Amino acid sequence: MARPQEFDTNEALHQAMDVFWQKGYEATSLSDLLKAMGLSKSSLYAAFGGKRDLFVAAFDAYRKDRVVEMRQILGQPNAREAITQFFRKIVNDTGNASSRGCMSINQAVEMAPRDPEVRSRVLEDFQLMEDALTATIEHGQSNGSITSNEDPRQLACALVLAFPGLQVMTRAGADQKRLDEALNRLLASLD
Amino acid sequence: MARPQEFDTNEALHQAMDVFWQKGYEATSLSDLLKAMGLSKSSLYAAFGGKRDLFVAAFDAYRKDRVVEMRQILGQPNAREAITQFFRKIVNDTGNASSRGCMSINQAVEMAPRDPEVRSRVLEDFQLMEDALTATIEHGQSNGSITSNEDPRQLACALVLAFPGLQVMTRAGADQKRLDEALNRLLASLD
Repeated sequence: MARPQEFDTNEALHQAMDVFWQKGYEATSLSDLLKAMGLSKSSLYAAFGGKRDLFVAAFDAYRKDRVVEMRQILGQPNAREAITQFFRKIVNDTGNASSRGCMSINQAVEMAPRDPEVRSRVLEDFQLMEDALTATIEHGQSNGSITSNEDPRQLACALVLAFPGLQVMTRAGADQKRLDEALNRLLASLD
Repeated sequence: MARPQEFDTNEALHQAMDVFWQKGYEATSLSDLLKAMGLSKSSLYAAFGGKRDLFVAAFDAYRKDRVVEMRQILGQPNAREAITQFFRKIVNDTGNASSRGCMSINQAVEMAPRDPEVRSRVLEDFQLMEDALTATIEHGQSNGSITSNEDPRQLACALVLAFPGLQVMTRAGADQKRLDEALNRLLASLD
């Protein structure tokens, strides 16, 4: 019988995720990870391989959480309200020094250019968001909460294009009022 | 009389800039920099201080180049054509593994959250772009090359919001056709 693992893998992955999300891949040291996860070096290597493998697993844990959250928010009965809430959540993250933005956007910048496994995940995330927003817009147009009669996928693509801007400006600490204005203009495309 | 410096500071800064732009701050090692700049460690430290100071100087060299380029492109007589060219340039950078995106957007993600000097530069760059696009749109509305009669600053803000999306998707290696479509939809807001 295998010796039972003495820690919760999922919890440890989320602890690693928090560090990578905040600091990025390169700026995260092994000692940052050991401290956050409360593990010895040998336990970390035995359970997750090296830093790069742990990073990919932590990124996947992040992506899984975000997809669940996205489907929950966008699944609300009122589609206009659902999309507003989805984007409002980004912008409300501002105003504190620890705004982390979206890990997938951060990784589009940091690792995607040189790591094909990260790159394919990032591109898949853009596609997932486009598909989910398209379905929500279709739903809103059919029940009247979205009054624009533009093509749902075209509207969704314009929202996806603006997503990194909101995330990046939030992470860089842009003024809350400016972000709110940008968001309101963006959402007006649904009316 | 001071001993003349044996290398061209501006050229060395641009060599450092290329490395930081491609790899980001953290992933760039001192030996990457020494190799790219063809300097000894002591010359680099004497001329530029440490890695962080060199980075800020290289980032400023990048920003200076981009402002000159932006004013040149946006200063063309036909404002609609000028704005198209400004954004087309981003998207045409795709399709090769070394797409670097915009160093300022990359740094909004990497260093701005933890380095106030980088943060203020990044926010200033967003403002510079918004002001330059606003002036170009005003010019285009007055001579007829831009037919939308929406408020110039509002139009400019929508373009600035989309800028990181185009940059980030290009850097992450998104499909050229999708990027072209996103750009065409964006530019249609000027008509």
